[in-house]
Amino acid sequence: MIGGLGAALLLATLTTQAQLKPEEQIKYRKAGYNFMAWNMGKIKAQVVDGSEPYKKEQVVAAANAIAAIANSGMGALFPAGTATDKMGDQTRLKPEFFKNLDEANKLARNFTGAVNKLASEAASGDQARIKTAFGEAAKTCKACHDQFRTD
Amino acid sequence: MIGGLGAALLLATLTTQAQLKPEEQIKYRKAGYNFMAWNMGKIKAQVVDGSEPYKKEQVVAAANAIAAIANSGMGALFPAGTATDKMGDQTRLKPEFFKNLDEANKLARNFTGAVNKLASEAASGDQARIKTAFGEAAKTCKACHDQFRTD
Repeated sequence: MIGGLGAALLLATLTTQAQLKPEEQIKYRKAGYNFMAWNMGKIKAQVVDGSEPYKKEQVVAAANAIAAIANSGMGALFPAGTATDKMGDQTRLKPEFFKNLDEANKLARNFTGAVNKLASEAASGDQARIKTAFGEAAKTCKACHDQFRTD
Repeated sequence: MIGGLGAALLLATLTTQAQLKPEEQIKYRKAGYNFMAWNMGKIKAQVVDGSEPYKKEQVVAAANAIAAIANSGMGALFPAGTATDKMGDQTRLKPEFFKNLDEANKLARNFTGAVNKLASEAASGDQARIKTAFGEAAKTCKACHDQFRTD
């Protein structure tokens, strides 16, 4: 199935989930948020600021990437012990996160719902609706940053 | 549309594409590849190694994230001047990339095709087919690493 020794070596570098160290979990969750931020920036430029011309297929692709990342089970990357109290400046996650998991889960559900809505509005091609959905999604980002991310 | 000053400040931190610096472009493309690697690892654990139980919805979500990232226009994150000759150890991209753009584009198309196939096979729920598609996708990762990424 996998072609040759080289590909087997590549695969050997892919760590299974149970083996992930806290610093790897932090790296992967940061990667997800950073890549979402890049795509939020593209939608903002084309639909909110108008600083770049609106191209439907680019906004759809950006919104789909954000939604697919949000839907990929990132909660698994937030195990106990991965906040600033244990991991220092490797992360900006406040320890309060783990004392308020119900609230964190609620914010995560709001976020996922909002970016799924953004993806469906992107598909509509209606810029006013995309702009509204973008604003709602951005609010759900900020809600979690305000409560659980250090400045 | 956007609620309050706080959300406006958040939005102000989202940089539009034309303003991105080389180091930001490198950060975002690394984020995309790292997040794809996390999701490849999940599929490998469940479908290739069997080190974790197969859960269709998790494999579908992982494959969708990989495909959506691959389809999000990452080529924009590879402008001239963002290889090791100019950016040092911020990147592993070899300068050869920019001298062989036809080859790079071909490898990128192979990669995108393979991860889209992986996503559609994931949706089928047929583990043998997912395993085959995973191996093919991994080969397209390695092909680009071999030619254009430093060790």
